[in-house]
Amino acid sequence: MAPEYKTTKGQDFDRPAFESLLKRKNFLWQSFEPYGAVKGLFDYGPPLETLEAEVINIWRDHFIRTEKMMGLKVSMLTPYAVLKTSGHVDKFADFMCKDPKNGEILRTDHLIKDVIESRLKSDREARGEKVNEEEDDPTKKKKRQIKASKTAVKLDDAVRQEYEHLLATLDDCTGDDFAALIKKHDIRNPSTGNEVEPPVSVNLMFQTQIGATGKEPAFLRPETAQGQFLAFQKLLEFSDDKLPFASACIGYSFRNELSPRSGLLRVREFLMAEIEHFVDPAGGKKHAKFASVRDIKMPLLSRQTQTAGGSEPTIITIGEAVDTKLVDNETLGYFLVRIMLFMEKIGIDMAKLRFRQHMQNEMAHYAADCWDCELLNSYGWIECVGCADRSAYDLSVHMKATGVPLQVREPLKEPIRVEEFQAQLDKKKSGPHFKKDVGKVQEALDALSQDVREKLSISMKSEGKVVVDVPAVAGGKVELTKDLVSFDKESKVVSMREYIPNVIEPSFGIGRILYSLMEHVYWTREGDAARSVMSFKPTVAPIKVLVVPLQKDTRFATLLAHLEERLDDAQLSFRLDQSGVSIGKRYSRNDELGIPFGITVDYESLEDNSFTLRDRDSTKQVRAPLEDILEAVSRMVKGKETWAEVQRRLPAFEGKEE
Amino acid sequence: MAPEYKTTKGQDFDRPAFESLLKRKNFLWQSFEPYGAVKGLFDYGPPLETLEAEVINIWRDHFIRTEKMMGLKVSMLTPYAVLKTSGHVDKFADFMCKDPKNGEILRTDHLIKDVIESRLKSDREARGEKVNEEEDDPTKKKKRQIKASKTAVKLDDAVRQEYEHLLATLDDCTGDDFAALIKKHDIRNPSTGNEVEPPVSVNLMFQTQIGATGKEPAFLRPETAQGQFLAFQKLLEFSDDKLPFASACIGYSFRNELSPRSGLLRVREFLMAEIEHFVDPAGGKKHAKFASVRDIKMPLLSRQTQTAGGSEPTIITIGEAVDTKLVDNETLGYFLVRIMLFMEKIGIDMAKLRFRQHMQNEMAHYAADCWDCELLNSYGWIECVGCADRSAYDLSVHMKATGVPLQVREPLKEPIRVEEFQAQLDKKKSGPHFKKDVGKVQEALDALSQDVREKLSISMKSEGKVVVDVPAVAGGKVELTKDLVSFDKESKVVSMREYIPNVIEPSFGIGRILYSLMEHVYWTREGDAARSVMSFKPTVAPIKVLVVPLQKDTRFATLLAHLEERLDDAQLSFRLDQSGVSIGKRYSRNDELGIPFGITVDYESLEDNSFTLRDRDSTKQVRAPLEDILEAVSRMVKGKETWAEVQRRLPAFEGKEE
Repeated sequence: MAPEYKTTKGQDFDRPAFESLLKRKNFLWQSFEPYGAVKGLFDYGPPLETLEAEVINIWRDHFIRTEKMMGLKVSMLTPYAVLKTSGHVDKFADFMCKDPKNGEILRTDHLIKDVIESRLKSDREARGEKVNEEEDDPTKKKKRQIKASKTAVKLDDAVRQEYEHLLATLDDCTGDDFAALIKKHDIRNPSTGNEVEPPVSVNLMFQTQIGATGKEPAFLRPETAQGQFLAFQKLLEFSDDKLPFASACIGYSFRNELSPRSGLLRVREFLMAEIEHFVDPAGGKKHAKFASVRDIKMPLLSRQTQTAGGSEPTIITIGEAVDTKLVDNETLGYFLVRIMLFMEKIGIDMAKLRFRQHMQNEMAHYAADCWDCELLNSYGWIECVGCADRSAYDLSVHMKATGVPLQVREPLKEPIRVEEFQAQLDKKKSGPHFKKDVGKVQEALDALSQDVREKLSISMKSEGKVVVDVPAVAGGKVELTKDLVSFDKESKVVSMREYIPNVIEPSFGIGRILYSLMEHVYWTREGDAARSVMSFKPTVAPIKVLVVPLQKDTRFATLLAHLEERLDDAQLSFRLDQSGVSIGKRYSRNDELGIPFGITVDYESLEDNSFTLRDRDSTKQVRAPLEDILEAVSRMVKGKETWAEVQRRLPAFEGKEE
Repeated sequence: MAPEYKTTKGQDFDRPAFESLLKRKNFLWQSFEPYGAVKGLFDYGPPLETLEAEVINIWRDHFIRTEKMMGLKVSMLTPYAVLKTSGHVDKFADFMCKDPKNGEILRTDHLIKDVIESRLKSDREARGEKVNEEEDDPTKKKKRQIKASKTAVKLDDAVRQEYEHLLATLDDCTGDDFAALIKKHDIRNPSTGNEVEPPVSVNLMFQTQIGATGKEPAFLRPETAQGQFLAFQKLLEFSDDKLPFASACIGYSFRNELSPRSGLLRVREFLMAEIEHFVDPAGGKKHAKFASVRDIKMPLLSRQTQTAGGSEPTIITIGEAVDTKLVDNETLGYFLVRIMLFMEKIGIDMAKLRFRQHMQNEMAHYAADCWDCELLNSYGWIECVGCADRSAYDLSVHMKATGVPLQVREPLKEPIRVEEFQAQLDKKKSGPHFKKDVGKVQEALDALSQDVREKLSISMKSEGKVVVDVPAVAGGKVELTKDLVSFDKESKVVSMREYIPNVIEPSFGIGRILYSLMEHVYWTREGDAARSVMSFKPTVAPIKVLVVPLQKDTRFATLLAHLEERLDDAQLSFRLDQSGVSIGKRYSRNDELGIPFGITVDYESLEDNSFTLRDRDSTKQVRAPLEDILEAVSRMVKGKETWAEVQRRLPAFEGKEE
């Protein structure tokens, strides 16, 4: 656990107590518990399911509606060929080691980390050092030293240093590096003591088959992005051929983790919200609305700071960050701001948010720049949104693989004369020769770069024929002879510019954001650690109103029914708690569900139709006629008014909770 | 195509024109087109993606919030054991035939239907009968007769009748029946003329593996229901142990169709919204809110009417339907009403909706009653919501398979004395013997029925030991000796009643509903079939406002920016069309997107900040200051006011569209 992690009130965060609340209030649980539960799969119970829906609605409003994005829904089942082209078949993998005696599969980096960390821990024990950072009790230290002498193993200083370096550089290891480390340090399966087999790369996609022929291997997608790239032509059409534009997809992706850990932070099936913003690379990737955000300050942890061993972000306006090229361009900068504002809107603690720039070796080779929005929770700083400039990589590889022009053709203001290698079919001869495929062949030729055309031109001169890849036709290749096509260099006047757009991709892991949010809003009442509160903002809280009649009394029935009807009409979700326990207790246990407002029905209500309204966070109350109470709640739930404002305009009520 | 199918304005429905609109306006397309597209998988473009989100929000409000259901999110990846118990591994299958020469896989019922229908068609041609119901032109008839003499084959009257009977009863066939029909009628693959291999049952679930060990086979779920049943204990807890309660899950399910057809109506990956309403079977499954709906009239097509060959639903109040036992119980009846009201709310044409009762042979053996909400579209009457009483089946089989008590324990008002076989572990001896598993063993014993306990009691007496299934422990079985457990019959006072709830399940196919909705709102302007309109209700329309400046003129820029800002503040999605074509043409082409309201910016707007507001369906306009226009649109989009009401209170504007 991150030792510095505190609740929003500065209290030590007690993860077991927090997890017990999540379980008790049915926020989530492991899926298929009656069958023994499956690791890495979670069900969301009523509060979390609704919280997710509220957060998604805000996301849609903040991004899709406000930024005029094109909502897309693309398929989860994805054919092999698509993910072969994207690189996922070859590269979306982890190394694993098998224990040959019991068949257990271990993720190689976890295995090495666990073994080395346990040796370092044992070393600290042997030296009588603190094992746990928070522990400072001298009697405990004494006990440690006595106990340590029995089982702990002290390491040489050099070995200790080597281990620490090893842990710091584990993320950069290749398969061969892992194999060498396992051999050198005699790493074994800790649960059996067995030697493990050498690391093997295992793909992390779930594989399946479409249809029954066995000819359509497919995967569950690892990201929604590829489906969006393949819709590029439709998006361009829907945007009247004008760039920039963005698509957005809220959908599930899958990752067949070998040994899932860390609860909701690493799961096998997860909701993502991914934006693909397509922009002309010429002109520096400016953004039309950048001026409106340029003075907003951001916590940015640069690559440079990290290289120097620092971990404190610099607080700097996004305008300055872009001007100094810390952030590569305006579009990327604009999205970083929008991501931060979204997090603020849903109730993330801004003191627990930072943007960390990827190190050069973290990024895909094609990426121009990449920043993660990280949220601090009890597991440490966790990547919750990645915001990468993917350059023209994805559209280029799919265009090359399919021959379909995933590019923009734009009229030039002034036509220009250029020397270019042609790749034009002879219209008369190619039609009868290729019949219905003639269009596909020309499309594939159109997609060839000038380099390739030059090579083909040379081959054609020497051989009299060439073979060209045309994935869209049977066999995937066609032979072209001199009479069918010309690759000659020609000088011509060009009035259109053709280019492949670059893609800036903010990609949100919704489950990680929800988990962090739940930790951020969790705290306990002063002086009573057992009374915990989930301070969800009224805009996202799963249930908006708690209704509590003063006591069990049939005289309340009619008024309660009326109140419920009015809440329904106002589209305010509510929970009625008419159990026999005290009002204070009922408030307390529903504070754990994060219900922001409580309406008490008492004997005065029967007489004058007035009610008390209680604020969860402050436990303060006001009293007013039903109309005013409902209006105040509605306004607060829509984010149009705060409790402080309501308190100023409605009369205070000094009731006692207990 | 259903011959009687008309648009809402009574026009002949032109499906090719409708499909061309869906394509042109990017409502949807087949997934992965650049790679050749995959059958049965569709992407939703911007209008349909947003329409779905609006419909889902209404669904959440209409069911989850209003009916106080518990929203759940359960995993798509589902372990083998769960779907083995539910019966899907054995029964969720279609018969297929393989063409041995080219390896093609054909769905057996489709194959037989296609071949027999083509023979009947050829017969009708040979007899000079109409092939297409709509065709009535005498010259065409003449041509048919001439043409028919060349290729058509006339059938004997007896054969013709046999074929017609065969088509009508195809749905009831077993695998053996299919095999017999193929042999008797010499059914061959129509595209090759080859004989096919005998029908084989093929499971329709997508199979995959969780993890890398090969020990966790899994499927993509065919329905969300099973995950909800397995959450039963949590739901009961969240409901303070009180029945009835309902869970609801909006999520994707999968069906590996062998040869998908019919566009969005039969797809491989689809969004469902499923409700599981758990109710005590004792007491007739009453519903607390039934009185509030009992006078609502419903179009009900009963089993009896269908048996008698009828297809016209009876219009009858739900109260009468339940009183006469046409609908089995109040809870089922209440849900049928709520389903109908939901359909009305999203804009389904009520003349194209009916509820059809399942025939006895259509229902699962355990179902008590089942009604489908069918919507009429150009493919015929299509099941869009199933509403089944699943009885206690699912909870019972999972309880039996896992030993986990998926049941309710309820205090009796008066304790009663009963004679029962015990199944109680000896507390002192069983603890040391089973260690950590002791609780699991007792749970499995608790789940045993009286019948089973009686048998075990006899075995224990004769053998001195018994073996009991305990799926939750390693090996799945435990041996119990006399000293560990007693199965003796004892008379005891019982103060708790135990029962397994029944489940009523309304299950919505969202894709089918959206497709039907799109057909229902489609029509063309009188006298101009090329001007088509999608009359989405303002509450669900994907884009709410079209903004059209009178013409391209830089003087409008500031006012347009202001208007856009105001629309953003009011959370109204809009599309700006400032292309050079006439206003009428711009309205026309955006009518195809179903944008309900248009705001025109003209020279008068520059002077007095007034705008015209145009209604898509009537093309009528009003003119008013910006504040009034925005307020009117907001109210209409929230369903709080109609265009007719707005027209009455704001001044008419007599502009010309063209």
